[in-house]
Amino acid sequence: MGQQPLRITHQMKGLFITLEGTEGGGKSTQAILLVERLRDWGRKVQMFREPGGTPIGEEIRHTLKHSLANAAMTAETELLLMNASRAQLVREVIRPALARGEVIICDRFYDSTTAYQGYGRQLDLEMVRRVIDVAVGDTRPDLTLLLHVPAEVSAERLRSRQANLPFIRDRIEEADRAFFERVEWGYEAIAAAEPQRVRKIDATGSVEQVQSAVWRVVAPLVATGHGA
Amino acid sequence: MGQQPLRITHQMKGLFITLEGTEGGGKSTQAILLVERLRDWGRKVQMFREPGGTPIGEEIRHTLKHSLANAAMTAETELLLMNASRAQLVREVIRPALARGEVIICDRFYDSTTAYQGYGRQLDLEMVRRVIDVAVGDTRPDLTLLLHVPAEVSAERLRSRQANLPFIRDRIEEADRAFFERVEWGYEAIAAAEPQRVRKIDATGSVEQVQSAVWRVVAPLVATGHGA
Repeated sequence: MGQQPLRITHQMKGLFITLEGTEGGGKSTQAILLVERLRDWGRKVQMFREPGGTPIGEEIRHTLKHSLANAAMTAETELLLMNASRAQLVREVIRPALARGEVIICDRFYDSTTAYQGYGRQLDLEMVRRVIDVAVGDTRPDLTLLLHVPAEVSAERLRSRQANLPFIRDRIEEADRAFFERVEWGYEAIAAAEPQRVRKIDATGSVEQVQSAVWRVVAPLVATGHGA
Repeated sequence: MGQQPLRITHQMKGLFITLEGTEGGGKSTQAILLVERLRDWGRKVQMFREPGGTPIGEEIRHTLKHSLANAAMTAETELLLMNASRAQLVREVIRPALARGEVIICDRFYDSTTAYQGYGRQLDLEMVRRVIDVAVGDTRPDLTLLLHVPAEVSAERLRSRQANLPFIRDRIEEADRAFFERVEWGYEAIAAAEPQRVRKIDATGSVEQVQSAVWRVVAPLVATGHGA
């Protein structure tokens, strides 16, 4: 019944959210919409895509995606490069921002490595896990939104994107159908292993429908434990 | 007493030699002289410096050594980038060359990572070992020549090099004295752990003296098990 103690400092807790899934699930669109909505709620938000997000990471992104030599790149090289970019992003940007109580949204993070390099390229999963551990240490997402579309929808969305932008297909998108089926299976395995962190969202509907589904999962985190 | 069977194919065994040590031990000079001598003996030899040796590796070398952003590079990023270059070199060049019976000479290889990133930058040694394992797999040097100079000689040689070439000092050479002492100690630990592979050579003498000492170790390998 007494007066609540005055809270002089009102420290918000940082919140780290990643968006994951196969191609064509609308991750980038949903990430942008989520950033806007969180900013409307008064949160300071930074959004990143992987690889990249730092000057060093952008150089690594160029080597991974646009190097003339990259047809010769081995799966192990790709794994180590991707995680070099990640190690830099985590230490230079993500950790300081979370410590200041900000929100970080990543359009892909380490689950993509597990799904694409581990399940997709069939690298040893324990080896993949160890390299990820080097890159991220204890910095793990509070929430991962797995935007799920059936393989047919994914393939169709990807085809229409490539028709519009025939020259920017990257090496991952050139891989074959069996590869994508393994990636999808990998995401299912990740979601099954960590149901508390990974929330699967049906991404077959309209942008607005998916946005609503995303917000239903995120809003409680912003409003309570991780919020103002 | 019977006639020896005719050896129709005469397959040479590949030979993988690395040169290691702190700055100023003359590794690059000795590597070049060793390549020449092995070629005089009729061996096909390729020499590499790390990071680099492939188009992808040279891009990574640029990010590691010349990026304007590299003052911000974390030790974990450096570890992963260095080993990304190594993973590519091992699979694209070293393994195929060894399989063809050629000799590979590397001016620095994974012992540099253990000594500089592990002991020098004080990264967890088990973590360093795991990342190296991803990069090299079973591809290990047959022989490592550890060119040893006392810390004072190393510092003096480095100073005179920097006086001549003030603009090409790289970030590793800018590190402090305590760092170099830890690196030297790291090399001692590596040599103690693998005496069969790592041969320590006194590199305080003239170029010719050191070259003779190197050849005394290498010649038996070329002449017998790994030779013609």
